[in-house]
Amino acid sequence: MKIIAFYQTKFGELWEKSLTSLMKEAIFGVLKEANLEIDQVDAIFFSNMMAGVLENNLHTSSKISEIIKKNIPIFRIEAACASGGVAFHLATKYLSDNCQKTLMVLGAEKMTDYSPEEVTSALAAASSGEEQEAGLTFPGLYALMANFYLQKYHYTEENLAYVSYKNHFHGSLNEKAHFQNKLTIEKILTSPYVAYPLKVLDSSPISDGASALILTNNEQLIKKSKFSVAVLASEMATDSINLFKRKNLDEILATKIASELAFKKAKIERKQINVVEVHDCFSIAEILAMEDLGFWKKGEGGKRIKELSTMLGNSNLTVNPSGGLKAGGHPVGATGIKQIGEIFLQLTNQAKIRQVKGARFGLAHNVGGSGGTAVVTILAA
Amino acid sequence: MKIIAFYQTKFGELWEKSLTSLMKEAIFGVLKEANLEIDQVDAIFFSNMMAGVLENNLHTSSKISEIIKKNIPIFRIEAACASGGVAFHLATKYLSDNCQKTLMVLGAEKMTDYSPEEVTSALAAASSGEEQEAGLTFPGLYALMANFYLQKYHYTEENLAYVSYKNHFHGSLNEKAHFQNKLTIEKILTSPYVAYPLKVLDSSPISDGASALILTNNEQLIKKSKFSVAVLASEMATDSINLFKRKNLDEILATKIASELAFKKAKIERKQINVVEVHDCFSIAEILAMEDLGFWKKGEGGKRIKELSTMLGNSNLTVNPSGGLKAGGHPVGATGIKQIGEIFLQLTNQAKIRQVKGARFGLAHNVGGSGGTAVVTILAA
Repeated sequence: MKIIAFYQTKFGELWEKSLTSLMKEAIFGVLKEANLEIDQVDAIFFSNMMAGVLENNLHTSSKISEIIKKNIPIFRIEAACASGGVAFHLATKYLSDNCQKTLMVLGAEKMTDYSPEEVTSALAAASSGEEQEAGLTFPGLYALMANFYLQKYHYTEENLAYVSYKNHFHGSLNEKAHFQNKLTIEKILTSPYVAYPLKVLDSSPISDGASALILTNNEQLIKKSKFSVAVLASEMATDSINLFKRKNLDEILATKIASELAFKKAKIERKQINVVEVHDCFSIAEILAMEDLGFWKKGEGGKRIKELSTMLGNSNLTVNPSGGLKAGGHPVGATGIKQIGEIFLQLTNQAKIRQVKGARFGLAHNVGGSGGTAVVTILAA
Repeated sequence: MKIIAFYQTKFGELWEKSLTSLMKEAIFGVLKEANLEIDQVDAIFFSNMMAGVLENNLHTSSKISEIIKKNIPIFRIEAACASGGVAFHLATKYLSDNCQKTLMVLGAEKMTDYSPEEVTSALAAASSGEEQEAGLTFPGLYALMANFYLQKYHYTEENLAYVSYKNHFHGSLNEKAHFQNKLTIEKILTSPYVAYPLKVLDSSPISDGASALILTNNEQLIKKSKFSVAVLASEMATDSINLFKRKNLDEILATKIASELAFKKAKIERKQINVVEVHDCFSIAEILAMEDLGFWKKGEGGKRIKELSTMLGNSNLTVNPSGGLKAGGHPVGATGIKQIGEIFLQLTNQAKIRQVKGARFGLAHNVGGSGGTAVVTILAA
C-alpha cells in the first residue's frame, strides 16, 4: 500500500475561500500531483469536524459527488481533531491488501469566518458534556495536563516554550505554514495566558485549509508514479472522553496503545525513525506525545525539548518539520492528512529548505480532543 | 460475512432518554442478543447525523470508549439520513473476507428535545447551501419530485396515500414502531399539507431511537450463534447534492447505481427477494425507490402501490414490514441499521406477527438527503 501524491493548500486566515473552494483546490491539486484523472479514483474518504456545527453543512459525500461529477462511494469521517488520521486509517483498512483500488483521502476545515466564541464552542464539541458544562474549553483541558506535568516533574513554563520556539523556526521554512515567523523564548514567555500555564504562544491557531493524499495498491500506478512511500502501519486507539476518568494526567493512553500497535505492525524500532509529525495543539501536547510514542522516557520530555535535538539538523530525529500545528496551522479536518503528507514529502526528498536529510522512516501522530482518540501512522521511503 | 444479532430501542418521542442512554441501551442490548462480551468486539462503526448541530456533541468515538471502557477503534460515520447504511457498508469493507474480526454497527439519534424549527434546520444540513438559502426544506425537495412524478405519469395524491396506508398497517404489528395506529386513505388525504402535494401523513416523523448489529467473519462465533444471516452485498453510490443539477426528477440515480452493483455482486435476481425495507421518508420516496431498485417499471409505481401487493401476506414481496420510516419512525442515525436489522429478523423468523412467511432473501435501501447518497444491502437466510 503506497501513498503516491500529496497536496496542501496554504493554511491560514483565508477569508476569500469557502470550505467548498478549499476542498476543490485540494481535490484537483492532488490529482495533478499524482497525474491522475478523477475516473481513476475509486472512493474518497473525507475528513471534517465542524462544518455541521459552524455552517449547517453535512452530507458532504453528496456535495463532493457534485464537485467531481462522479457517483463513487464517498465517506465523511469525524473524530474531532483526529478526523484526518482516522479517515486515513479507515482508508488503509478499506484498501485491503488484495484490492487494486485507488483512494483519495481528503480533509478540509473552514474556521476563520466565525467569531472566536463560536469556534471555541464548536471545538468544545470534542469534549464531554460535563466538561462543556463546567466551562472547560480545550486550552483549559490541556492546561490541567500541563500543570500536572510541570509540578510532577519539576519543570517550568520555560520548558514548554521550547516546543513553540522550535516549531516556529520550522514554520519559517514552510511556505504553506500559517505562521512563518520565528519566535524568541522571551516573546513566548511574555505572551498572554490563555489558561495558566498555557499562553497564546503555547497554542495552535484557528486556521482554514485543506489537504489530500492519494493511496493505492495498484501496481501499475505505483510503477508510473514519480514518488511513492509505503504505509507500514496505521493504528488507532480510543480512550475515555472525560479527563477526570483517566488514570494518569501526564500521559495520553490512546497514543501509547496506538504507538505500540503501529511499531509492532511496522516491524521497525523507534531509533530507525528520522522524521515525526506530532499533534502539538498545545506545547505540552508535543512533550507528552514524544514520551507516549516511546521516543523519550516519561518525565524526561521537559529536559529533552530544551536540548533542541529535535530541531532540523540537530540530530537524526526531527520533530514537526512542517511547523506542526503550532506554526503550520490547525484547520482541524485537514491536520491529520497534512501530517502524513509532510512525512510523504520528507521521505521523497520534496521538502525543500526544511528537508530532513536522508530520511528513510517517518511517523505521524494525530490526536482527537484531550486524547480520546489517537492515530499513529508509520511510513517508509 | 454474517450478521448474528440485532437490537433496536423503541423508536418514538422518548423524552426521558438522552442520546447517551439510547446508545448504551443499543450497545448492551445487542451484546446480550449475540451472547457476547464487549471484549469480543474488535471495532465499532457509529452512525449519527445531527448531534453536532443540535447538541454540540462530536468526537463520539471517545464518548463510546468511555461507555464500554475499552480502547478499541471506534468510527463515527455521517452521510445525512444514509449514515446507518454507509456505516454498515464501511464495516463490511473493513471486515475483508480474510479477517476473523467482529464488529458492532451502531446508530442513534436524539431529535425530540429540540423545537421543530431547530430539527428542520438541522435536517436541511443534508441539502445544498443554495437549497438552504432558497428555503427548500426536505418536504419541499420531495414535494418537487412528487409533483413532477404525479404530473408526468398522470397520478393523483391518492396514489401516494397507499404508501402510508400500507406502512401504518405494518407499524400496527411492530411494538418498536413510533406509530402503531392504522390509517384510512381518507384520513391521509385530509391531513394538512406540509409542502404540496405532500401532507403530514405522507411524511416520516421526527423520532428518537437507536439500533445495533453484530457483523462477523469469525467462524466459531457464527457456529455458536442462535441466528445468522449472510451479507451477499452492500453497495453504495453518490450523486449531486442539488436537485436542479440532476437529469431526472422522477428517479434517484444513486439508488439505481447502488442497486445494479448490489444485485450483480449478490448474484441473485430481483424476483428472488421476499422482503424489502426501503427509505420512505415521504410517500413518493417509496414509489421512486421501488422503481429505481428495479422491482417496478419506471412510471408504474403509482398504479402498483394501489394494488397493495407489497402489503404483508398479499404476494411474495413485502415492502417495509417494520412500518418503514413513515410508521416505524426515523431517528436518522439509527434508520439504516434498523432497516438491515428488520431484514435480519425476517430472515431468521423472529418478526413475530409481522413475519413474512418463508422469507429467504431480503434487501435494505437507505437514502441520504434528496438522493445524494444511497446504499443497497442484500441479505440471505
